[in-house]
Amino acid sequence: MNKSQIGVIGLAVMGKNLALNMANHGYSVTVYNRSEDKTKQLLAEAAGRQLTGAYSLQELVASLERPRKILIMVKAGSPVDTTIEQLLPYLEQGDILIDGGNSFYQDTIRRHQQLAARGIHFIGTGVSGGEEGALKGPAIMPGGDRKAFALVQPIFEAIAAKVGEDACCTYIGSDGAGHFVKMVHNGIEYADMQLICEAYVLLRELLGLKPEEIKEIFAGWNQGELNSYLIEITADILGKTDPATGKPMVEVILDKAGQKGTGKWTSQVALDLGVPIPSITTAVFERYLSAMKDERVAAAKRLAGPEIQAVRKPAAFAEAIRRALYVSKIGAYAQGFSLMAGASRQYGWDLDLGSIAMIFRGGCIIRAQFLNKIKEAYDKNQDLPSLFLDEYFRTSIENYQQDWRDVVVAAIQAGIPVPAFTSSLSYFDSYRAAELPANLLQAQRDYFGAHTFERNDKEGTFHHNWEA
Amino acid sequence: MNKSQIGVIGLAVMGKNLALNMANHGYSVTVYNRSEDKTKQLLAEAAGRQLTGAYSLQELVASLERPRKILIMVKAGSPVDTTIEQLLPYLEQGDILIDGGNSFYQDTIRRHQQLAARGIHFIGTGVSGGEEGALKGPAIMPGGDRKAFALVQPIFEAIAAKVGEDACCTYIGSDGAGHFVKMVHNGIEYADMQLICEAYVLLRELLGLKPEEIKEIFAGWNQGELNSYLIEITADILGKTDPATGKPMVEVILDKAGQKGTGKWTSQVALDLGVPIPSITTAVFERYLSAMKDERVAAAKRLAGPEIQAVRKPAAFAEAIRRALYVSKIGAYAQGFSLMAGASRQYGWDLDLGSIAMIFRGGCIIRAQFLNKIKEAYDKNQDLPSLFLDEYFRTSIENYQQDWRDVVVAAIQAGIPVPAFTSSLSYFDSYRAAELPANLLQAQRDYFGAHTFERNDKEGTFHHNWEA
Repeated sequence: MNKSQIGVIGLAVMGKNLALNMANHGYSVTVYNRSEDKTKQLLAEAAGRQLTGAYSLQELVASLERPRKILIMVKAGSPVDTTIEQLLPYLEQGDILIDGGNSFYQDTIRRHQQLAARGIHFIGTGVSGGEEGALKGPAIMPGGDRKAFALVQPIFEAIAAKVGEDACCTYIGSDGAGHFVKMVHNGIEYADMQLICEAYVLLRELLGLKPEEIKEIFAGWNQGELNSYLIEITADILGKTDPATGKPMVEVILDKAGQKGTGKWTSQVALDLGVPIPSITTAVFERYLSAMKDERVAAAKRLAGPEIQAVRKPAAFAEAIRRALYVSKIGAYAQGFSLMAGASRQYGWDLDLGSIAMIFRGGCIIRAQFLNKIKEAYDKNQDLPSLFLDEYFRTSIENYQQDWRDVVVAAIQAGIPVPAFTSSLSYFDSYRAAELPANLLQAQRDYFGAHTFERNDKEGTFHHNWEA
Repeated sequence: MNKSQIGVIGLAVMGKNLALNMANHGYSVTVYNRSEDKTKQLLAEAAGRQLTGAYSLQELVASLERPRKILIMVKAGSPVDTTIEQLLPYLEQGDILIDGGNSFYQDTIRRHQQLAARGIHFIGTGVSGGEEGALKGPAIMPGGDRKAFALVQPIFEAIAAKVGEDACCTYIGSDGAGHFVKMVHNGIEYADMQLICEAYVLLRELLGLKPEEIKEIFAGWNQGELNSYLIEITADILGKTDPATGKPMVEVILDKAGQKGTGKWTSQVALDLGVPIPSITTAVFERYLSAMKDERVAAAKRLAGPEIQAVRKPAAFAEAIRRALYVSKIGAYAQGFSLMAGASRQYGWDLDLGSIAMIFRGGCIIRAQFLNKIKEAYDKNQDLPSLFLDEYFRTSIENYQQDWRDVVVAAIQAGIPVPAFTSSLSYFDSYRAAELPANLLQAQRDYFGAHTFERNDKEGTFHHNWEA
C-alpha cells in the first residue's frame, strides 16, 4: 500500500476542507476523526481522490511517509494537547506536527518547546479564510522551525490562496509567530467589521436608506479604494431577502454578535505588551454590548437621546461616510501592525510586516487592495513607526480628515454610537499629539502615591513635595 | 515578654505606614523586613509606641499572640508565595495570613485554597489610599473567610478611614473578592484621572487658560457635585510652582504616564468576563500612548490637524466641560460597577455594591461625594442593571447630555483627543440603543464562517445559504 504524504486529524469544517483542498491539488492524504462517521462521510464525498481513512491514531501514523507530516485541526486549547499526547507514542524523531487551529500563541510556544525536547518538529500555523477559504485557498501563516516548514511548504503553497502568481503562504517566524499574526489578523477583522457596521448604521439612520439602497452604496465603494472581501460580502448580504418573510435578511437577523475569543486575546495581549489598540478593543466591547440585547431594549425606553436630524446633502454625506470609514480603517490597521511590531521586538521574531500584509491580501477575511499599500509602505521603510507616517496613508488622512471629523460629529450629535470611528480618530489625534495631558496625570500619581515623574528640561526621575 | 497582637512583613512605604497606623491606634505590632535596616529605621521613628522588631520570620511568628495575625505587605506576585512558603513551617492551624498588597485576585483565590488545605486562614485585602492613606486611614476591602476576618476586624476598623462614624472597611466576600474590588477601584481610578486630564487639556487649549486659572476652575468644581479627592489634588497641583525654574509644576513635568498594571488587569479581566468597560481600557491605552513621547513628538511634525478656534463664550464653555466631565464620570463608574456585578455572578461572591460604594467614599483615591449617590442607587435597587438607570444619574445625564455632546464635538473639531469623554458617551449611546448594527455583523460572520445567527421574529439559531 502506498503511504500518504500528509495526515489530517479533526474533520470539522476547516479540517475537512483543508483535506479536500490538498487532495484536489493531487496530494495523498490520510484523514482521521475521533468519531468515525465524519471520516466515512468525507471519504464518500471525496470519491476518486487520494483520500484514505484511518480509524485510530496508530493507523493514521502508520499510513504516512517519513518524516510524517500531520496537520491537527481540533478545537484550540486542551484538545490540542490531548491529541499530541496520544500521537507521541507512535512518532519518531524528525516527524512534523502542524497545529492549524486558532491556538493561543503562548500555547504554541510551550508546545514547540515540549516537542523540540523530544525531537519532534512543531509548526503552529494560522489559517484564514473561513470555510470557503479552507477549501479553495486560505491564507497560511506558519511559525516554528524553518527547516521543518520547508518540508511541508510545497503542500501549503499549493493549497494556499493565490494573488497573481504569489501564494498567500510565507514563513512568519519561530515558535508562536504564526499563531500570533493570525490572532492579530482576527483582531483587525473585528475592527474592520465594526467599522463597516458603523458606516451601515449611519447610512440607515442619518440618510434614512433601505438595505437595497445601502447595498448599492457598498457595491459602489467596493469599486474604489475600499475594495475588499468584507465590503463585497456586505453589499451581497444587504441584497438578500429572507425566504420566510420576504423581508431583507439584515432586518430579520437579531443584533447580537457572537465571538470566538481571538479579538479578546488580541486585546489582552496588546495590554500586556503595552501597545494601544483602542479600535480593536472597542470592537470587542461593542460585541459584548450587542449581546446585552434585553438590557438595551429596556434601557432604550428610559434613556432618551437627541432627535435625529435628516442630513441635508445625502450624496455628499454618503461620500463623507466612505472617507471616514477609509481613514478609520487606516487607524485600525495602524494599531494592528504596531502590535505585530511590538511583539516582534518582544519575542525576537523579526517579523516582515510587508510580507505579512501580502499574505493577508488573499484568502483572508480582511483581504483587500488596501493591503498592497501597506506592503508598499513597509517596502519603502521596514522600520516605519506607524502606517500614519507613510506618505500614501498620510496623504489619505490629510485629504479625508475633515470628513472624518464631520461624520463623527454628526453621529455624536444624533446619538448614534460609532465607537470604532471615534476611537480610530482619538488614536490618530493622540498619536500626533506632541503634548498629551499625562503631565497632570503623572503629577497626580506623584501626589498620592509618590510614583515620581520625569521632567521636560532635564534627565532623571523626580518627586515633588506636594504638601509643602 | 508580652506577645504582639499583629505582625507586619514588608516595610516599604505601605507596610511601614500601616504598621505605624496600627501602633498609633494602640495595637502592639511586630514588624519584619527582609533587609534589617528598614526595620531599625522604623523602630527609631516609632519610639514610644508598641512596635517590636523581628529579624527572622521565626522570631516574628514567635512574638505573636495565637491565633497569629500576620499582614504581608510585599510586592505582588511570586514574593507573596515565597513569603507564605517561608512562614508555613512556623504557623499553626487557625493562624491568619493577610495579604494587603495589590495581588491579582486569581492568585488570591489559589492561595486561599492552598492555605485552607493546611488549616491556615487567608485574607486577601485591598488597601487603598496610597502612602498617606495607609498612615492616616485607608479604605480596606477584605476578602476570604468571614470568621477569620472577624478576628482582625477590630484592628482593621480602627485603622481605616472614617466617614462620619463609619469605618471604610467592610467584608467584601469570599476568597478573591477583596482583591477583585480593589482592582476595579484602581481601574475606575484610571478612567477618573484620564477624564480629569481631558477636562484640563480642553480648558488649556480651547479656552487658552493658564495653570493658575485652571486651578481656580477646579477648585470651584470641587465645591459642587464633582467634589472629590482627585479634583481637589488637581486644583492643588495646578497651583504649585517648580522651585528650580519658577514655572508651574505641571509645565515642567513630562507627559509620560507610568502605571503599575492594575488598570491593565481590570481590562483583561473585563474582556474575560464579557463586560464592556471602554472608558477604563481607553485610559490604560492612553497611558501607553503617553509613554510613546518621542514617537509622538516626531509624528506631530508630520501629521497636521485642524486649527484650534478659540471658544466664543468661555465661561459657558467651562461649565459645559464641567458637565461633560461629570456625566463621563457616571459612564466610567457605571462600567466599573457593572464589572463588579458581572464578577459577583461569575464567582458567587454576592457583592453588596452599595456597601462597596461606601468603602470607596473614604480613604480611597476615588473618594467622592458622588459615591453617596451610588450607594443610594443600590439601596433603592440592589439589582440595578446600570447606574444610568438610577433616577438621580438618569436625570443628571438628561440635563447635561447636550453639553456632553457639544464638548466632545468641539474637541473633535479642534483635533484634541478626548478618548475617555468619547468612549463614555459611546458607551452610553450603545447601552441605550435598542438596535445596534450587530445584525449586519452577525450576517457577515454567518456568511464567511457559518457562525449562525438568531432572528428577531422567532427562537432558535439559523444559518442562511448566502451563496444562493
